[in-house]
Amino acid sequence: MCRFLAYAGDPILLEELVCKPSHSLVKQSLSAVQARTVTNGDGFGIGWYGERPEPGIYHEVMPAWSDENLLSRCANVRSRLFLAHVRAATGGGIARQNCHPFHHGRYMLIHNGQIGGYARLRRQLESQLPDALFEHRRGATDSELLFLLIVQQLQAGMPAPEALRRVLASTHAAMQQAGIAEPLRFAAALTDGDTLWAIRWASDDQPPSLYTKPQAGGWAIASEPLGDDSEHWTPLAPGEMVRVWRGEMERVGAG
Amino acid sequence: MCRFLAYAGDPILLEELVCKPSHSLVKQSLSAVQARTVTNGDGFGIGWYGERPEPGIYHEVMPAWSDENLLSRCANVRSRLFLAHVRAATGGGIARQNCHPFHHGRYMLIHNGQIGGYARLRRQLESQLPDALFEHRRGATDSELLFLLIVQQLQAGMPAPEALRRVLASTHAAMQQAGIAEPLRFAAALTDGDTLWAIRWASDDQPPSLYTKPQAGGWAIASEPLGDDSEHWTPLAPGEMVRVWRGEMERVGAG
Amino acid sequence: MCRFLAYAGDPILLEELVCKPSHSLVKQSLSAVQARTVTNGDGFGIGWYGERPEPGIYHEVMPAWSDENLLSRCANVRSRLFLAHVRAATGGGIARQNCHPFHHGRYMLIHNGQIGGYARLRRQLESQLPDALFEHRRGATDSELLFLLIVQQLQAGMPAPEALRRVLASTHAAMQQAGIAEPLRFAAALTDGDTLWAIRWASDDQPPSLYTKPQAGGWAIASEPLGDDSEHWTPLAPGEMVRVWRGEMERVGAG
Amino acid sequence: MCRFLAYAGDPILLEELVCKPSHSLVKQSLSAVQARTVTNGDGFGIGWYGERPEPGIYHEVMPAWSDENLLSRCANVRSRLFLAHVRAATGGGIARQNCHPFHHGRYMLIHNGQIGGYARLRRQLESQLPDALFEHRRGATDSELLFLLIVQQLQAGMPAPEALRRVLASTHAAMQQAGIAEPLRFAAALTDGDTLWAIRWASDDQPPSLYTKPQAGGWAIASEPLGDDSEHWTPLAPGEMVRVWRGEMERVGAG
Repeated sequence: MCRFLAYAGDPILLEELVCKPSHSLVKQSLSAVQARTVTNGDGFGIGWYGERPEPGIYHEVMPAWSDENLLSRCANVRSRLFLAHVRAATGGGIARQNCHPFHHGRYMLIHNGQIGGYARLRRQLESQLPDALFEHRRGATDSELLFLLIVQQLQAGMPAPEALRRVLASTHAAMQQAGIAEPLRFAAALTDGDTLWAIRWASDDQPPSLYTKPQAGGWAIASEPLGDDSEHWTPLAPGEMVRVWRGEMERVGAG
Repeated sequence: MCRFLAYAGDPILLEELVCKPSHSLVKQSLSAVQARTVTNGDGFGIGWYGERPEPGIYHEVMPAWSDENLLSRCANVRSRLFLAHVRAATGGGIARQNCHPFHHGRYMLIHNGQIGGYARLRRQLESQLPDALFEHRRGATDSELLFLLIVQQLQAGMPAPEALRRVLASTHAAMQQAGIAEPLRFAAALTDGDTLWAIRWASDDQPPSLYTKPQAGGWAIASEPLGDDSEHWTPLAPGEMVRVWRGEMERVGAG
Repeated sequence: MCRFLAYAGDPILLEELVCKPSHSLVKQSLSAVQARTVTNGDGFGIGWYGERPEPGIYHEVMPAWSDENLLSRCANVRSRLFLAHVRAATGGGIARQNCHPFHHGRYMLIHNGQIGGYARLRRQLESQLPDALFEHRRGATDSELLFLLIVQQLQAGMPAPEALRRVLASTHAAMQQAGIAEPLRFAAALTDGDTLWAIRWASDDQPPSLYTKPQAGGWAIASEPLGDDSEHWTPLAPGEMVRVWRGEMERVGAG
Repeated sequence: MCRFLAYAGDPILLEELVCKPSHSLVKQSLSAVQARTVTNGDGFGIGWYGERPEPGIYHEVMPAWSDENLLSRCANVRSRLFLAHVRAATGGGIARQNCHPFHHGRYMLIHNGQIGGYARLRRQLESQLPDALFEHRRGATDSELLFLLIVQQLQAGMPAPEALRRVLASTHAAMQQAGIAEPLRFAAALTDGDTLWAIRWASDDQPPSLYTKPQAGGWAIASEPLGDDSEHWTPLAPGEMVRVWRGEMERVGAG
């Protein structure tokens, strides 16, 4: 499993959430509390929007806790919308290509969870992608594949919440058809550079943890509370999806 | 393009070919002479057979010329059969998973060349692999894919020379069917830990360079001569394949 | 030797100089023209000033030409003053700690050249540093040491041009005293986040190359011209030092 | 702090101790039990003797748990004497140059502990080294410095136990003279490729843990037991030093 955070609101220095809090994402890379794996040291990534429609991306295979580049970048980049992720590899190998966020054009995704029985389903799911998207497949993870499947729906004009639900449903259906008993789990944040969506979902009753908190004229969303302020963090209910836009968060549809 | 070398013969320290010659593979990583790219600094790999049937493998994304681990390893590992490769990435990203040699069980391959129009053919070629082999696909390169297609034939009992020819023919046929005009080029060394095969082939008239030279009770095979001894290196003819076994090299079939 | 560039002027995206020109610094990392070493693939670094007095820093041991993080960062960071450097290691090993720019507080330096006989002089020069500065010594290069010696003078209130001349003179004197015949060579750019100084100097008649060119309401300074526009780049004379401040460049003192 | 192991005895595959035990060194890199830091993910290193007097060395900044090169190497290299170390950085930065084992000629050292107030003492201690040894200083750690100080004594003909005691005493004296209250702690293994010495020492009453166990015609020495066989591991007493030679372990002198 992994740990992540997303932010949308007034422009803030990345370090405000990534590095400085007492239980920041960097600290979670060394010792997560609510994750199935304590150590999330198999690489990390951040993506942020600046003055361009496409995000800037930084992927690294080193543990987040020991990367001075990350500290320096987070102290010097200010953004109104960014995603950050520390990885505990469950498959796909240690490589920058397997680090989150995954991005395509203006879209970005970070994910915590997995496709049960992925090895058996991978080619079937990949075959659903159009050539133009498959060519952007760079790594080997189930997360990147889910992202490209979602982008496919977005490019076809489907709204993001529907695209997320559609891909989860079709992936789960494919798993069932293949007789896979392991669950599909999906806590994630998706953005187009303007709106931020987050979802906490699983095909069983154990969706990965996900919390929200008002922050700097906007909202922070994280796998676990970033500080000693647990009381200010609200867990998403299983199946719940939220949307952050222009500083406001609202619930989107039902599980 | 890339540069590689293969050796089969009396056990020698890897450094005898990888590091010490005046135009060693390490030096070729910085300045190759007969390659389309002078610099082959996008990672490297070595694989060698010791006391086990499966090879030891070392993959690294750093340039070979600056990796002290490589020097130390080559000065301390002695082997009767090894492959080494320095990479100039043409696709697939910089990652250990995209470094040669590719290996599966006791088989290993190093490759210089490419599948023309690979991005369009990748899924079609991947779909030909059985699940058990596809699960071993770790990177994104055409070289790894060709290797797994060859292993598929070897596992089905086909002799290596036939497996190589078969996969090249079927891949080229798929390229033609897809209307791809770019060539398939394939200079490679393949081994099962006992016999070493090398082939210099292309669907057009420009196969990558490949040379052989008697060495220490066996044979060295390399993309370009390793020293000032060009006169002792014999180029393979276009389409030619050779086999090294028990210190003897012989030509295998026709182009 | 190495290649570098410095810029001070209107805020521009880093990519305008680092990545986009036909002979950009990234391209020089693979094939420099005027350097003693064609390949500068032993790591790189960039430092840029944003909204803080201290610069943001990115150091990486991978070659610049293959680092996607670098491209993404340069496409998304805009700065009014930045330094960038690609390294061809002459000593000190491949490590982030040995990558330029070196920085301390608001000061930053990039350097091309070397202290002749450095190994014999290193401790003597290090012993001149006060504890507080020596504790910031992180790597093993002569460049970092020269930087800290310069910072020592700057912290004592000496103007930058004088500090540069002073440290070069005292270092050269120490070399002569030790009977070192090899030259001291020093093409460099130094900044306090406000003013940019550049110098082309050597104790013999072969100072490393250094050029200037008006650029976007300011000036670019580079080891060699960045594009097909050689006619717009003016070489510094041996011994020459320049200063860029508020968009204007002027010559500072004599060699 | 860090975790390490040393072995001297009949030639065994490195994996027998490094990777395979239920609480192997690779597993300790992710979750040490008796260390002050649970995670030892700031790089690692192994050194082993083969057919040459100098050891082969492998240093890597990645965490040991995620490095496939390490697994492959350990499965394919057999040695009669080797050292392995996983690092939790306390100073000196993440770099291969700061990874243990440190080596010089046929000597090698791994260390767990630290010099209290090292930043203030570093130059003074470095100044004690002769030029020829100081030139071999590659990183910035206190461990490497202690190693070179020990090598200095060994090269002068002092027996290893005496050299260890001498350097610890003089370093501690220098600390006291400088008014440093923090302790000097030193659990270490030292070898000349023939004999293996291990010591558990501290200037206070908290020396880092160190255990021994008979293994394969020889002895394993480790920071903590490698498996579920704690009852077979004997802790060294504080101050105790042992020597392994020709398969026999004996106590060397007093604390």
